[in-house]
Amino acid sequence: MKRLIVDMDDVIADATGQFINFYEKEFGVRVTRESLNHQDEGLGFPANHDVVQQFPFRSSFFQTMQPHEGSQKIIELLNKKYELFIVSAAMEFPQSLPEKLKWLGEHFPFLTWRQIVFCGSKAVVHGDYMIDDLPYNLETFKGEKFIFSAPHNLHIHGFQRLNNWQEVGERFL
Amino acid sequence: MKRLIVDMDDVIADATGQFINFYEKEFGVRVTRESLNHQDEGLGFPANHDVVQQFPFRSSFFQTMQPHEGSQKIIELLNKKYELFIVSAAMEFPQSLPEKLKWLGEHFPFLTWRQIVFCGSKAVVHGDYMIDDLPYNLETFKGEKFIFSAPHNLHIHGFQRLNNWQEVGERFL
Repeated sequence: MKRLIVDMDDVIADATGQFINFYEKEFGVRVTRESLNHQDEGLGFPANHDVVQQFPFRSSFFQTMQPHEGSQKIIELLNKKYELFIVSAAMEFPQSLPEKLKWLGEHFPFLTWRQIVFCGSKAVVHGDYMIDDLPYNLETFKGEKFIFSAPHNLHIHGFQRLNNWQEVGERFL
Repeated sequence: MKRLIVDMDDVIADATGQFINFYEKEFGVRVTRESLNHQDEGLGFPANHDVVQQFPFRSSFFQTMQPHEGSQKIIELLNKKYELFIVSAAMEFPQSLPEKLKWLGEHFPFLTWRQIVFCGSKAVVHGDYMIDDLPYNLETFKGEKFIFSAPHNLHIHGFQRLNNWQEVGERFL
Protein backbone atom coordinates (compact mmCIF):
# COMPACT_ATOMS: atom_id res chain seq x y z
CA MET A 1 0.00 0.00 0.00
CA LYS A 2 1.44 3.38 -1.00
CA ARG A 3 1.65 6.07 1.67
CA LEU A 4 -0.22 9.29 0.95
CA ILE A 5 0.42 12.41 3.07
CA VAL A 6 -2.39 14.98 3.01
CA ASP A 7 -2.27 18.46 4.54
CA MET A 8 -5.15 20.08 6.49
CA ASP A 9 -5.38 23.87 6.07
CA ASP A 10 -6.38 24.86 2.53
CA VAL A 11 -6.33 21.22 1.44
CA ILE A 12 -9.05 19.38 3.37
CA ALA A 13 -10.06 22.46 5.42
CA ASP A 14 -11.12 25.77 3.90
CA ALA A 15 -8.63 28.02 5.71
CA THR A 16 -8.94 30.77 3.09
CA GLY A 17 -12.69 30.90 3.66
CA GLN A 18 -12.06 31.14 7.38
CA PHE A 19 -9.64 34.09 6.93
CA ILE A 20 -12.34 35.81 4.87
CA ASN A 21 -14.98 35.14 7.54
CA PHE A 22 -12.80 36.34 10.41
CA TYR A 23 -11.76 39.43 8.42
CA GLU A 24 -15.36 40.33 7.72
CA LYS A 25 -16.31 39.90 11.37
CA GLU A 26 -13.41 42.08 12.53
CA PHE A 27 -13.27 44.79 9.85
CA GLY A 28 -16.75 44.68 8.32
CA VAL A 29 -15.45 44.03 4.79
CA ARG A 30 -16.18 40.86 2.84
CA VAL A 31 -13.11 40.17 0.71
CA THR A 32 -13.67 37.96 -2.33
CA ARG A 33 -11.70 34.77 -2.77
CA GLU A 34 -10.57 35.92 -6.22
CA SER A 35 -9.07 39.16 -4.88
CA LEU A 36 -6.58 37.04 -2.92
CA ASN A 37 -5.33 35.22 -5.99
CA HIS A 38 -1.60 35.18 -6.81
CA GLN A 39 -0.53 36.78 -3.53
CA ASP A 40 1.29 35.14 -0.64
CA GLU A 41 -0.92 34.00 2.22
CA GLY A 42 -2.59 36.92 3.97
CA LEU A 43 -1.19 39.63 1.69
CA GLY A 44 -4.40 40.13 -0.25
CA PHE A 45 -6.32 41.61 2.65
CA PRO A 46 -6.82 45.40 2.61
CA ALA A 47 -4.94 47.97 4.67
CA ASN A 48 -1.96 45.66 5.29
CA HIS A 49 -3.79 43.85 8.04
CA ASP A 50 -1.43 40.97 8.73
CA VAL A 51 -4.18 38.42 9.27
CA VAL A 52 -1.81 35.43 9.12
CA GLN A 53 -0.10 36.64 12.29
CA GLN A 54 -3.42 37.19 14.07
CA PHE A 55 -6.38 34.97 13.25
CA PRO A 56 -4.70 31.54 13.53
CA PHE A 57 -3.85 32.26 17.17
CA ARG A 58 -7.48 32.86 18.04
CA SER A 59 -9.75 30.36 19.70
CA SER A 60 -12.19 28.59 17.32
CA PHE A 61 -10.30 29.64 14.15
CA PHE A 62 -9.38 26.04 13.35
CA GLN A 63 -12.34 24.30 14.89
CA THR A 64 -15.02 26.13 12.93
CA MET A 65 -13.50 25.78 9.44
CA GLN A 66 -15.57 24.20 6.72
CA PRO A 67 -14.22 21.06 5.04
CA HIS A 68 -13.16 21.70 1.44
CA GLU A 69 -15.86 20.72 -1.04
CA GLY A 70 -15.65 17.02 -1.87
CA SER A 71 -12.75 16.32 0.49
CA GLN A 72 -14.73 14.11 2.88
CA LYS A 73 -16.03 11.73 0.24
CA ILE A 74 -12.71 11.44 -1.60
CA ILE A 75 -10.64 11.04 1.60
CA GLU A 76 -12.95 8.23 2.70
CA LEU A 77 -12.27 6.41 -0.58
CA LEU A 78 -8.52 7.15 -0.52
CA ASN A 79 -8.42 5.77 3.00
CA LYS A 80 -9.26 2.32 1.63
CA LYS A 81 -6.64 2.37 -1.11
CA TYR A 82 -3.68 4.12 0.55
CA GLU A 83 -1.85 4.23 3.84
CA LEU A 84 -3.20 7.69 4.53
CA PHE A 85 -1.75 10.25 6.95
CA ILE A 86 -3.11 13.71 7.68
CA VAL A 87 -0.06 15.85 8.45
CA SER A 88 -0.54 19.40 9.70
CA ALA A 89 2.18 21.91 10.60
CA ALA A 90 0.15 22.93 13.64
CA MET A 91 2.81 23.31 16.31
CA GLU A 92 3.19 27.07 15.74
CA PHE A 93 -0.38 27.50 17.03
CA PRO A 94 -0.57 25.57 20.32
CA GLN A 95 -4.28 26.20 20.83
CA SER A 96 -4.99 24.63 17.45
CA LEU A 97 -3.92 21.12 18.51
CA PRO A 98 -7.08 20.04 20.38
CA GLU A 99 -9.22 22.03 17.91
CA LYS A 100 -7.73 20.24 14.91
CA LEU A 101 -8.11 16.85 16.55
CA LYS A 102 -11.75 17.56 17.32
CA TRP A 103 -12.33 18.90 13.82
CA LEU A 104 -10.95 15.73 12.25
CA GLY A 105 -13.12 13.58 14.49
CA GLU A 106 -16.16 15.61 13.48
CA HIS A 107 -15.63 15.81 9.73
CA PHE A 108 -13.50 12.71 9.04
CA PRO A 109 -14.75 10.22 11.65
CA PHE A 110 -13.42 7.22 9.68
CA LEU A 111 -9.80 8.32 10.31
CA THR A 112 -8.10 7.01 13.46
CA TRP A 113 -5.64 8.76 15.78
CA ARG A 114 -2.90 6.58 14.27
CA GLN A 115 -3.23 8.52 11.00
CA ILE A 116 -2.80 12.02 12.41
CA VAL A 117 0.48 13.94 12.66
CA PHE A 118 0.92 17.45 14.06
CA CYS A 119 4.39 18.82 13.47
CA GLY A 120 6.42 21.95 13.06
CA SER A 121 8.52 21.08 10.02
CA LYS A 122 7.23 18.51 7.52
CA ALA A 123 10.82 17.63 6.56
CA VAL A 124 10.58 14.77 9.06
CA VAL A 125 7.73 12.88 7.34
CA HIS A 126 8.15 10.47 4.46
CA GLY A 127 5.83 8.73 2.08
CA ASP A 128 5.10 8.09 -1.57
CA TYR A 129 2.85 11.08 -2.26
CA MET A 130 2.25 14.45 -0.63
CA ILE A 131 -0.63 16.85 -1.29
CA ASP A 132 -0.05 20.30 0.22
CA ASP A 133 -0.80 23.94 -0.57
CA LEU A 134 2.57 25.32 0.58
CA PRO A 135 5.71 25.02 -1.57
CA TYR A 136 8.07 24.85 1.43
CA ASN A 137 6.27 21.77 2.75
CA LEU A 138 6.56 20.07 -0.63
CA GLU A 139 10.19 21.05 -1.19
CA THR A 140 11.64 18.85 1.57
CA PHE A 141 9.51 15.84 0.60
CA LYS A 142 11.27 12.95 -1.14
CA GLY A 143 8.22 11.34 -2.79
CA GLU A 144 5.93 12.60 -5.55
CA LYS A 145 4.56 16.08 -4.80
CA PHE A 146 1.27 17.74 -5.65
CA ILE A 147 0.36 21.34 -4.94
CA PHE A 148 -3.31 21.80 -4.05
CA SER A 149 -4.61 25.05 -5.49
CA ALA A 150 -5.25 27.94 -3.13
CA PRO A 151 -5.26 31.68 -3.89
CA HIS A 152 -1.77 32.10 -2.38
CA ASN A 153 -0.12 29.46 -4.59
CA LEU A 154 -1.63 30.10 -8.03
CA HIS A 155 1.57 31.87 -9.11
CA ILE A 156 3.78 28.97 -8.01
CA HIS A 157 5.14 26.71 -10.75
CA GLY A 158 7.25 23.57 -10.68
CA PHE A 159 4.81 21.19 -8.98
CA GLN A 160 2.10 18.93 -10.34
CA ARG A 161 -1.14 20.73 -9.55
CA LEU A 162 -4.49 19.51 -8.25
CA ASN A 163 -7.17 22.19 -8.44
CA ASN A 164 -9.89 20.58 -6.34
CA TRP A 165 -10.96 17.32 -4.73
CA GLN A 166 -12.53 16.03 -7.92
CA GLU A 167 -9.08 16.20 -9.51
CA VAL A 168 -7.55 14.43 -6.48
CA GLY A 169 -10.06 11.62 -6.98
CA GLU A 170 -9.28 11.36 -10.69
CA ARG A 171 -5.54 11.18 -10.04
CA PHE A 172 -5.50 8.81 -7.05
CA LEU A 173 -8.59 6.59 -7.22
CA MET B 1 23.76 17.42 9.78
CA LYS B 2 22.38 14.00 10.75
CA ARG B 3 18.76 13.80 11.88
CA LEU B 4 18.16 12.42 15.38
CA ILE B 5 14.63 11.43 16.46
CA VAL B 6 14.11 11.33 20.24
CA ASP B 7 11.00 10.07 22.03
CA MET B 8 9.41 11.75 25.08
CA ASP B 9 7.79 9.31 27.55
CA ASP B 10 10.37 7.15 29.33
CA VAL B 11 13.16 8.70 27.27
CA ILE B 12 13.36 12.39 28.14
CA ALA B 13 10.37 12.27 30.53
CA ASP B 14 10.13 9.91 33.50
CA ALA B 15 6.79 8.31 32.64
CA THR B 16 7.51 5.25 34.80
CA GLY B 17 8.05 7.50 37.82
CA GLN B 18 4.76 9.21 37.04
CA PHE B 19 2.90 5.87 36.91
CA ILE B 20 4.39 5.03 40.30
CA ASN B 21 3.36 8.42 41.73
CA PHE B 22 -0.19 8.21 40.39
CA TYR B 23 -0.53 4.62 41.59
CA GLU B 24 0.57 5.56 45.08
CA LYS B 25 -1.85 8.48 45.19
CA GLU B 26 -4.74 6.29 44.03
CA PHE B 27 -4.08 2.99 45.80
CA GLY B 28 -1.82 3.97 48.70
CA VAL B 29 0.97 1.60 47.66
CA ARG B 30 4.41 2.78 46.57
CA VAL B 31 5.62 0.32 43.95
CA THR B 32 9.37 0.16 43.43
CA ARG B 33 10.83 0.79 40.00
CA GLU B 34 12.68 -2.54 40.16
CA SER B 35 9.47 -4.51 40.73
CA LEU B 36 8.32 -3.36 37.26
CA ASN B 37 11.40 -4.74 35.50
CA HIS B 38 11.01 -7.18 32.59
CA GLN B 39 7.23 -6.78 32.34
CA ASP B 40 5.28 -5.03 29.62
CA GLU B 41 4.22 -1.48 30.39
CA GLY B 42 1.74 -1.34 33.25
CA LEU B 43 1.75 -5.08 33.97
CA GLY B 44 3.95 -4.84 37.06
CA PHE B 45 1.37 -3.01 39.16
CA PRO B 46 -0.46 -5.09 41.80
CA ALA B 47 -4.00 -6.43 41.58
CA ASN B 48 -4.09 -6.22 37.77
CA HIS B 49 -4.83 -2.53 37.88
CA ASP B 50 -4.55 -1.61 34.23
CA VAL B 51 -2.82 1.71 34.85
CA VAL B 52 -1.79 2.17 31.20
CA GLN B 53 -5.45 2.42 30.21
CA GLN B 54 -6.23 4.88 32.99
CA PHE B 55 -3.57 7.34 34.15
CA PRO B 56 -2.44 8.68 30.73
CA PHE B 57 -5.97 9.95 30.09
CA ARG B 58 -5.96 12.03 33.26
CA SER B 59 -5.32 15.74 33.40
CA SER B 60 -1.79 16.71 34.56
CA PHE B 61 -0.34 13.19 34.01
CA PHE B 62 1.95 14.40 31.24
CA GLN B 63 2.48 17.95 32.39
CA THR B 64 3.83 17.11 35.84
CA MET B 65 6.36 14.44 34.81
CA GLN B 66 9.97 14.90 35.83
CA PRO B 67 12.59 15.09 33.07
CA HIS B 68 14.84 12.02 32.99
CA GLU B 69 18.10 12.58 34.84
CA GLY B 70 20.67 14.22 32.57
CA SER B 71 18.33 14.52 29.58
CA GLN B 72 18.15 18.32 29.59
CA LYS B 73 21.90 18.91 29.52
CA ILE B 74 22.58 16.24 26.89
CA ILE B 75 19.65 17.26 24.65
CA GLU B 76 20.92 20.86 24.73
CA LEU B 77 24.32 19.66 23.46
CA LEU B 78 22.82 17.24 20.90
CA ASN B 79 20.70 20.12 19.60
CA LYS B 80 23.88 21.86 18.40
CA LYS B 81 25.28 18.82 16.64
CA TYR B 82 22.20 17.16 15.12
CA GLU B 83 18.98 18.07 13.36
CA LEU B 84 16.98 17.10 16.42
CA PHE B 85 13.28 16.19 16.51
CA ILE B 86 11.25 15.24 19.55
CA VAL B 87 8.64 12.76 18.29
CA SER B 88 5.90 11.60 20.63
CA ALA B 89 3.08 9.17 19.86
CA ALA B 90 0.69 11.43 21.75
CA MET B 91 -2.40 11.35 19.56
CA GLU B 92 -4.05 8.53 21.55
CA PHE B 93 -4.31 10.92 24.50
CA PRO B 94 -5.86 14.15 23.16
CA GLN B 95 -5.56 16.02 26.44
CA SER B 96 -1.82 15.36 26.44
CA LEU B 97 -1.10 17.55 23.40
CA PRO B 98 -1.14 21.00 25.08
CA GLU B 99 0.38 19.46 28.24
CA LYS B 100 3.31 17.99 26.33
CA LEU B 101 3.91 21.21 24.44
CA LYS B 102 3.93 23.18 27.70
CA TRP B 103 6.20 20.60 29.33
CA LEU B 104 8.74 20.87 26.52
CA GLY B 105 8.71 24.66 26.74
CA GLU B 106 9.28 24.45 30.48
CA HIS B 107 12.04 21.82 30.59
CA PHE B 108 13.62 22.15 27.12
CA PRO B 109 13.22 25.88 26.36
CA PHE B 110 16.00 25.84 23.73
CA LEU B 111 13.88 23.63 21.43
CA THR B 112 11.57 25.38 18.95
CA TRP B 113 8.11 24.36 17.76
CA ARG B 114 9.71 23.34 14.45
CA GLN B 115 11.38 20.42 16.22
CA ILE B 116 8.28 18.89 17.79
CA VAL B 117 6.13 16.13 16.28
CA PHE B 118 3.03 14.59 17.85
CA CYS B 119 1.79 11.58 15.94
CA GLY B 120 -0.12 8.36 16.21
CA SER B 121 2.19 5.97 14.36
CA LYS B 122 5.91 6.74 14.14
CA ALA B 123 6.12 4.80 10.85
CA VAL B 124 5.70 8.15 9.08
CA VAL B 125 8.90 9.79 10.42
CA HIS B 126 12.34 9.32 8.97
CA GLY B 127 15.83 10.21 10.07
CA ASP B 128 19.30 8.83 10.67
CA TYR B 129 18.90 7.80 14.32
CA MET B 130 15.97 7.05 16.61
CA ILE B 131 16.05 6.72 20.41
CA ASP B 132 12.85 5.21 21.82
CA ASP B 133 11.77 2.92 24.65
CA LEU B 134 9.15 0.98 22.66
CA PRO B 135 10.14 -1.77 20.19
CA TYR B 136 7.16 -1.15 17.89
CA ASN B 137 8.25 2.45 17.35
CA LEU B 138 11.78 1.34 16.48
CA GLU B 139 10.68 -1.51 14.24
CA THR B 140 9.23 0.68 11.46
CA PHE B 141 12.20 3.08 11.49
CA LYS B 142 14.62 2.87 8.56
CA GLY B 143 17.66 4.50 10.23
CA GLU B 144 19.85 3.31 13.11
CA LYS B 145 17.80 2.36 16.17
CA PHE B 146 18.53 2.59 19.88
CA ILE B 147 16.31 1.31 22.66
CA PHE B 148 16.39 3.50 25.77
CA SER B 149 16.17 1.36 28.88
CA ALA B 150 12.93 1.34 30.84
CA PRO B 151 11.57 -1.38 33.15
CA HIS B 152 9.15 -2.59 30.46
CA ASN B 153 11.85 -3.17 27.81
CA LEU B 154 14.68 -4.79 29.77
CA HIS B 155 13.71 -8.21 28.37
CA ILE B 156 13.73 -6.98 24.76
CA HIS B 157 16.73 -7.92 22.64
CA GLY B 158 17.76 -7.08 19.09
CA PHE B 159 18.36 -3.35 19.47
CA GLN B 160 21.42 -1.34 20.43
CA ARG B 161 20.74 -0.26 24.01
CA LEU B 162 21.29 3.04 25.81
CA ASN B 163 20.77 2.71 29.56
CA ASN B 164 20.74 6.36 30.56
CA TRP B 165 21.48 9.87 29.32
CA GLN B 166 25.15 9.59 30.15
CA GLU B 167 25.36 6.73 27.65
CA VAL B 168 23.43 8.78 25.06
CA GLY B 169 26.03 11.53 25.46
CA GLU B 170 28.92 9.09 25.09
CA ARG B 171 27.44 7.60 21.90
CA PHE B 172 26.30 10.78 20.16
CA LEU B 173 28.49 13.66 21.34
